[in-house]
Amino acid sequence: MVYCLERVPAVVKAKPHLKEVEAFKTVLSGDREAIAKLSLRELEEIAVATLTGMTVDDFKVDVAEWITTAKHPRWNRLYTDLTYQPMLEVMQYLRDNGYLTFIVTGGGQDFVRTYSQRVYGIPPWQVVGTAGGVKYAYDKDGKPYLTKEPKLLLNDNNAGKAEGIHLEIGVRPVIAFGNSTGDREMLEYTTGRAGARLGLLVLHDDAAREYAYGPARGLPDTRVGTFTEALYDEAKKEGWQIISMKNDWNRIFPFDERS
Amino acid sequence: MVYCLERVPAVVKAKPHLKEVEAFKTVLSGDREAIAKLSLRELEEIAVATLTGMTVDDFKVDVAEWITTAKHPRWNRLYTDLTYQPMLEVMQYLRDNGYLTFIVTGGGQDFVRTYSQRVYGIPPWQVVGTAGGVKYAYDKDGKPYLTKEPKLLLNDNNAGKAEGIHLEIGVRPVIAFGNSTGDREMLEYTTGRAGARLGLLVLHDDAAREYAYGPARGLPDTRVGTFTEALYDEAKKEGWQIISMKNDWNRIFPFDERS
Repeated sequence: MVYCLERVPAVVKAKPHLKEVEAFKTVLSGDREAIAKLSLRELEEIAVATLTGMTVDDFKVDVAEWITTAKHPRWNRLYTDLTYQPMLEVMQYLRDNGYLTFIVTGGGQDFVRTYSQRVYGIPPWQVVGTAGGVKYAYDKDGKPYLTKEPKLLLNDNNAGKAEGIHLEIGVRPVIAFGNSTGDREMLEYTTGRAGARLGLLVLHDDAAREYAYGPARGLPDTRVGTFTEALYDEAKKEGWQIISMKNDWNRIFPFDERS
Repeated sequence: MVYCLERVPAVVKAKPHLKEVEAFKTVLSGDREAIAKLSLRELEEIAVATLTGMTVDDFKVDVAEWITTAKHPRWNRLYTDLTYQPMLEVMQYLRDNGYLTFIVTGGGQDFVRTYSQRVYGIPPWQVVGTAGGVKYAYDKDGKPYLTKEPKLLLNDNNAGKAEGIHLEIGVRPVIAFGNSTGDREMLEYTTGRAGARLGLLVLHDDAAREYAYGPARGLPDTRVGTFTEALYDEAKKEGWQIISMKNDWNRIFPFDERS
């Protein structure tokens, strides 16, 4: 979403009529408080305008440029530096022991695939994410290319995660990690079957080193990445492991000092 | 499609009103000539009735039962015995040399995934095919399951092959094999880029050992798996290799005697 917001000026420059549309006006104003209050419908409007209409190749170039330069204001580091050290370790541990690792993200599939190999050691074809349709066409030299269409094929959140796993992987996972209610159905789908299965949920309860939000366990509520008390209760009932960032993680980011 | 046709009696038994629908009546009549004349719309009607509405798990069981028992009348062999020996060899050769192999089929993704590992050495998550939506729900014990919906997500033919490769793989292939006009865009997409790229097309020109159809090269025309003269010309122009089953393949099926 940060990428989408930061692409707004370029998109408005190419399509000046968007300057008059409320959501785009708000983003261009730079008013952080107003931007944080954009409705889901407005955010979708921005996502469609900034993520579709271009060729797949142009999009890759744009994302690659952004992801290797844009920095998170709190840490003044690249977003791809803000990966979780314990997740990197457990994925490597699993791969070293004969597992295949996949990313199943509510984020854009095309977006995450541009850096998944380099950052997580996961190739593009093992990334499932929110995906739109693409359209095949020919350029003036007769060479084919694909254009990103404003047509949602997979909303890879909630039940969409289980459905996306079926569409792009085709077997039930044996282990699944999540960190929000958007992962609930994926964990149910993974663990809801006989045999050795494992579900785990990371709880963001460390405001000092990262963030603290829930509203589970009395943590502050949030609009993004919500972890409800109902999810917490289901985890307890189903035997999913709850990982406390604060208590269970020695290092959070790869750049954190070892303690 | 043979699977769909053979499932018709079971489906009609479960939904007796279909007995009055022309397409189903024709299939139940057993009149091979009339069945061969079913329109595309009627075949789609049959596909929807026989491939959707059941759970993903029930479908897998049904296909597994059928694919391990149903025999092709001409050879009196399982359909999975009728794989091409040279294709099996080249896929193994590529894998032995560090390539990943994928199936990109106009056939049903869920269908082919049930036997792809055993028959082709290709795991389900490396199979892209025609795919419908699935719907997440809970059974009476609260366990989740997916139901196959009559909603087409990907028609993995023609331009859909390039689009499906983008959706489920995310990178352009470097080598692609095809055998019909439905593979044209996949070969264009694979070879239409700088660097070492390879496109190959198998021409079914061996009526004695397999089949002969085109209408390319004056071979008999066909409704299924058409290989047009225009595709042949494009192959010549683009430098795609044309493989003649008759002249280039020593063995066609694994059970053929070595010559």
